[in-house]
Amino acid sequence: MRTLVTGGIKSGKSTHALVLAQAFPAPRSFLATAEAFDEELKARIARHQAERGRDFRTIEEPLRIHERLEDNMVLDCLTLWVNNVLYYEKEAEFETWLAALVAGLPPNIVIVTNEVGMGFVPGDPLSRRYGILLGRANAALAAACDRVVLMVAGLPLVVK
Amino acid sequence: MRTLVTGGIKSGKSTHALVLAQAFPAPRSFLATAEAFDEELKARIARHQAERGRDFRTIEEPLRIHERLEDNMVLDCLTLWVNNVLYYEKEAEFETWLAALVAGLPPNIVIVTNEVGMGFVPGDPLSRRYGILLGRANAALAAACDRVVLMVAGLPLVVK
Amino acid sequence: MRTLVTGGIKSGKSTHALVLAQAFPAPRSFLATAEAFDEELKARIARHQAERGRDFRTIEEPLRIHERLEDNMVLDCLTLWVNNVLYYEKEAEFETWLAALVAGLPPNIVIVTNEVGMGFVPGDPLSRRYGILLGRANAALAAACDRVVLMVAGLPLVVK
Repeated sequence: MRTLVTGGIKSGKSTHALVLAQAFPAPRSFLATAEAFDEELKARIARHQAERGRDFRTIEEPLRIHERLEDNMVLDCLTLWVNNVLYYEKEAEFETWLAALVAGLPPNIVIVTNEVGMGFVPGDPLSRRYGILLGRANAALAAACDRVVLMVAGLPLVVK
Repeated sequence: MRTLVTGGIKSGKSTHALVLAQAFPAPRSFLATAEAFDEELKARIARHQAERGRDFRTIEEPLRIHERLEDNMVLDCLTLWVNNVLYYEKEAEFETWLAALVAGLPPNIVIVTNEVGMGFVPGDPLSRRYGILLGRANAALAAACDRVVLMVAGLPLVVK
Repeated sequence: MRTLVTGGIKSGKSTHALVLAQAFPAPRSFLATAEAFDEELKARIARHQAERGRDFRTIEEPLRIHERLEDNMVLDCLTLWVNNVLYYEKEAEFETWLAALVAGLPPNIVIVTNEVGMGFVPGDPLSRRYGILLGRANAALAAACDRVVLMVAGLPLVVK
């Protein structure tokens, strides 16, 4: 089963994604899009890896995630992937990569993403560009998934 | 049927509103509150008009939307209407116009609005004023509608 | 019954909390975490007290809310409590106080909180710290409550 887990920051998305992935047969893998840009992120990545323990083989890929898809996988997260696409100035590749991602989804995958558009929208063009790309990615993946859940205060609200 | 479609930016609100309005008998109309303040908005407005095609007659009105209501209509969107009310310094008229809007709702209408209050709240008084007015408008219209949906990643979550 | 009411600003959270608390037997109490830092807040607090009328005895406590819990209570709100914890530099006490709050929940309580993480995340460390603490508080209370509702445009969407 393919599931998209969305929600706000600290709403329990990653934790819930790992719970859902326990239903997948081993060996399972974890595709991480985060890069350790600073100490805060480095600590967070290490903490998340420790939480996953030996249940998941970790694969790190900031950009070409469509080439690293495997069955029985957690992909965490689209939010940082879109961030990386803009950071590395690869926006010209975005639609191609997104289409390849949707086309290549394995039967068993949990994809983590974020809601960023339910608050005040910053006035700077980069933030708005980011919101547009993430919105496109979320809608494309939600359409391709069997199940979509919105996390609210650590609890899953079923959208699809 | 009267429907309020809310959600974040790029969550598929306008697209879903047009799908719902296909259930209305022709001729249908589209009440647009957007004004082409800059090139980005101008391009967006033109793109949206092209998407609607000849199915909808477009009416443009930034402020006195309660005077332009018709049956079988899409009203897109409350967010920009409240923005215009503040921009043109018509806040003294807000409650009167909102009451007239609620009282004048036709039997068949889809109203598009936005969630803006689920993120960090900016410290400036104008943003907070905007959030308060939009919150009042959303609640008043939601109470007057038969159906309210929250768009999440392009999918409708039924609230009412 | 224990209920957590979450949602965006001006989404009808406090009003809905008072409606739910009408099911509690009198005497009822209202635990307010707001402090009148400025005139806007002072007016808002006075307006809220007038709305509650004589149905609720008001208790004001910005920090040690776990010591003021009573049965048949509305706690409004976690958002300002976390704000106060940071403002008074009591972050070292946060986990202890949160655990005591969860452990001490009376049978009948309605707790009001806010979604702050579904928008763009500000870059400053204090805002991010705030988001993390509030996310922890929301998840801990949601897990301990019988019912969790997300307010959208004045309407409750049942999460649990």
